[in-house]
Amino acid sequence: MITRQEWQEVCDWAWDLVRNIGVVVRDEEFSQVEVADLGLGELPVTGLQILTLVSTQWVGAKLLILRPHQFFPQHRHPPSPTEDYPGKEEIFRGQWGEVYLYVPGEPTPDPKGNPPRHRRAHCTVWHEVNLSPGDQYRCPPDTWHWFQAGPEGAVVWSFSSKVTDAEDVFLDPEITRQTIIRD
Amino acid sequence: MITRQEWQEVCDWAWDLVRNIGVVVRDEEFSQVEVADLGLGELPVTGLQILTLVSTQWVGAKLLILRPHQFFPQHRHPPSPTEDYPGKEEIFRGQWGEVYLYVPGEPTPDPKGNPPRHRRAHCTVWHEVNLSPGDQYRCPPDTWHWFQAGPEGAVVWSFSSKVTDAEDVFLDPEITRQTIIRD
Repeated sequence: MITRQEWQEVCDWAWDLVRNIGVVVRDEEFSQVEVADLGLGELPVTGLQILTLVSTQWVGAKLLILRPHQFFPQHRHPPSPTEDYPGKEEIFRGQWGEVYLYVPGEPTPDPKGNPPRHRRAHCTVWHEVNLSPGDQYRCPPDTWHWFQAGPEGAVVWSFSSKVTDAEDVFLDPEITRQTIIRD
Repeated sequence: MITRQEWQEVCDWAWDLVRNIGVVVRDEEFSQVEVADLGLGELPVTGLQILTLVSTQWVGAKLLILRPHQFFPQHRHPPSPTEDYPGKEEIFRGQWGEVYLYVPGEPTPDPKGNPPRHRRAHCTVWHEVNLSPGDQYRCPPDTWHWFQAGPEGAVVWSFSSKVTDAEDVFLDPEITRQTIIRD
């Protein structure tokens, strides 16, 4: 749960940022930005601002907007239980700032990411991928990953196959995908 | 067929443009730019510069770079003959400059696009979609479309399902998909 004021502040911050880093976004698109607090009520620390530009039966294109050091917990995009779909394939591409992305593989010594202490037990993959502007990484379907912004915050493209956010599986059982805004 | 010099000039022009319009592209990515003259040998008039950033089994993300008034002929992305794939779905999104996109539907009176006279007979869809920066249009699989840049040239995102350029069907029988560069 977040307050209306908190929601407004993060939207204002995100809009100021997005307008000034070279991506072209219309006012009416930005008004649909999703503030995902994952039901945790600790948005400045854990959560994500998601601006969906394309979401069709086949294709997704989003901008993921992160506050400084904001952490997005470990999750995967599972196969469809009903269709022949292996789960969302997602290509991350840095646009502004830095993001540290963690995926399965050899754990990176001295990782730059530092999840909030009370969420750390639910981070089990520690192979670090550093996404600076222009860097790109393909995350296969159904693969665990989590990420955290660097000190300035970050804006990252997510290009993907069909978006299935509601199906996302998070490792942390406290997480719910829906954000409730309290007036 | 184009000459090496012509190829170099259009690459230099495209790189100068792409670096200055807010998209973040690495040198080594740009070095892979495709100059598509469609075998017609009239690149300044008919053709396209294509910068592929993502091309996987599921997802494509490209920048389409057009010189002033450059025309890209009518084509469609057909279903796969061997797989359960209806053909490439493509979402165009303006980044810089103007593009006039033509798709099936009510022909637009006084269209802004003006294909080269000797190619015009192979333009049969005339419903105009004006793509300014931030404008977006979804072209369903297997749907005829052609486009032309406005007076400044243009850069347009193409977000798509799996890229199948080699399968593209062009209406103009003179077209081949391969560009030959003459040294």
